[in-house]
Amino acid sequence: MSDAVETIAVLGTGIMGAPMAERMADAGFTVTVWNRTAEKAASLAGKGIAIAAGAVEAAADADVVICMLSSGPVCEAVLAGPDGVIAGMRPGAVLVVMSSIPVETAVALATAAAERGIVCLDAPVSGGEKGAKEGTLAIMVGGDGAVVGQLRGVFACLGRATHVGPAGSGALTKLANQLIVASTICAVAEALTLAESGGADPAKVREALLGGFADSTVFRQHGLRMVEGNFEPGGPAKYQVKDTSTAIAFARTRALRLPVSEEVDRLFQAMVDHGDGDLDHSGVILELRRMNPRGGNSA
Amino acid sequence: MSDAVETIAVLGTGIMGAPMAERMADAGFTVTVWNRTAEKAASLAGKGIAIAAGAVEAAADADVVICMLSSGPVCEAVLAGPDGVIAGMRPGAVLVVMSSIPVETAVALATAAAERGIVCLDAPVSGGEKGAKEGTLAIMVGGDGAVVGQLRGVFACLGRATHVGPAGSGALTKLANQLIVASTICAVAEALTLAESGGADPAKVREALLGGFADSTVFRQHGLRMVEGNFEPGGPAKYQVKDTSTAIAFARTRALRLPVSEEVDRLFQAMVDHGDGDLDHSGVILELRRMNPRGGNSA
Repeated sequence: MSDAVETIAVLGTGIMGAPMAERMADAGFTVTVWNRTAEKAASLAGKGIAIAAGAVEAAADADVVICMLSSGPVCEAVLAGPDGVIAGMRPGAVLVVMSSIPVETAVALATAAAERGIVCLDAPVSGGEKGAKEGTLAIMVGGDGAVVGQLRGVFACLGRATHVGPAGSGALTKLANQLIVASTICAVAEALTLAESGGADPAKVREALLGGFADSTVFRQHGLRMVEGNFEPGGPAKYQVKDTSTAIAFARTRALRLPVSEEVDRLFQAMVDHGDGDLDHSGVILELRRMNPRGGNSA
Repeated sequence: MSDAVETIAVLGTGIMGAPMAERMADAGFTVTVWNRTAEKAASLAGKGIAIAAGAVEAAADADVVICMLSSGPVCEAVLAGPDGVIAGMRPGAVLVVMSSIPVETAVALATAAAERGIVCLDAPVSGGEKGAKEGTLAIMVGGDGAVVGQLRGVFACLGRATHVGPAGSGALTKLANQLIVASTICAVAEALTLAESGGADPAKVREALLGGFADSTVFRQHGLRMVEGNFEPGGPAKYQVKDTSTAIAFARTRALRLPVSEEVDRLFQAMVDHGDGDLDHSGVILELRRMNPRGGNSA
């Protein structure tokens, strides 16, 4: 790839892809988008963004192809194979997969891309719709470090990019992020359950610990949901358990024991098995109550 | 107690008690201190603070007695019994136990105090020496809420006090705090271990996740220690495990299962059993490496 990126294709214009495409167009890049359901891309047409009829058409002339489709299997279906996007891209172009995908998929896509002279970066994000709109995403990038440097201007539109290691490392870092979030939610749920069992007021306990060593974004936001009993998602537990179980499965391929994370995964799995998968992940406190029918305020 | 607190006794002038006594004297209270090792209290004499020869003498005329001794058993030895501080306090005075003590000890002291017409609050703190010096401690108060209100001016010298429930609730809230800290440390250690096992650079992973949902004071401070391999305490693991095992033991008295916290306690216990109890609690990542001898960077 030459250093100067001019044309960018964005595959997938959902709640993340659409604002990301807009930000890049606003920054002066020539942006073409494609979305499986065409209507979802239509609103971008008025904003100087071209709409392509197919993924391969969108990607054919692009310097950089950004993939923000919904899952690993969807990315593979659109990107890989003889009729896929990788087969249709210009050699020398760069593919950036920003969906959260399994580590193995990231490595397989990078290998397939390399066979065609294309560099593929796995670059999942954290920060949600708000981060996508405001250009404040945390972007965890695995793959060729020199190419990450060449895309500096593209990433700068979207947020803060950190090169974390070779292909697959971005996907793995996202799993690490999800494990920490899931474990912290469980820690807060168990601590509030303990406090309540001894007669303390969980809302006051949360208030008392604000600003101390136990404080965190999870503690503030998910702790508040637990105290208020508000489990509207947010982040549905069924997606949370998908991430924790993907992380644990990857650890097993490395014969790696992660005892606390394994317990966290089991707890979220039990929550989903008991029918609460559509609740916010902070609802894991309900699973603790289910597990402890005689628990609760004993004062 | 009359609403106006004038005289305060501080029992225990270690790294926490001494600066707390100074702050209260600076605020205009008449402060008398006692310390088992008299030399440690001597430096306070030049600061308008009286030094008493014994704990009972220090407490006899005080409106408020603040106990900042080193542990539950030491507090009981000094406060309880026929020759103890409670027996020598004025009826109507208030005892505030700010040491971290077991919930059962807090309840027992409150009961013994009530028999003499004395209110006892359990009010452990978070924020360490820095918080004590700067008056920014988080103070978790269990006991009579009306009395907590009367001591507003005293607590205001020391930090931010939150009344969390009846006697024992302050001690319990401190345990909840310690459980969250311990669990978050384990979560960060496991996530970094996972990332490293797949070839990502742990230092870059930490950098990538700053500012996101996985971020916290623990993530920043203890994550940095793990990345740098700096396990100078800080907070020695042997004290951490004392707190987690006290919390788990209390949960058992309520027949309460806390599966993630139990695993966290086991992990810290294994770290101490393997001889690393004097390392900072972030050194729990070494226990994960010991558990996973084939783990680590496989790239």
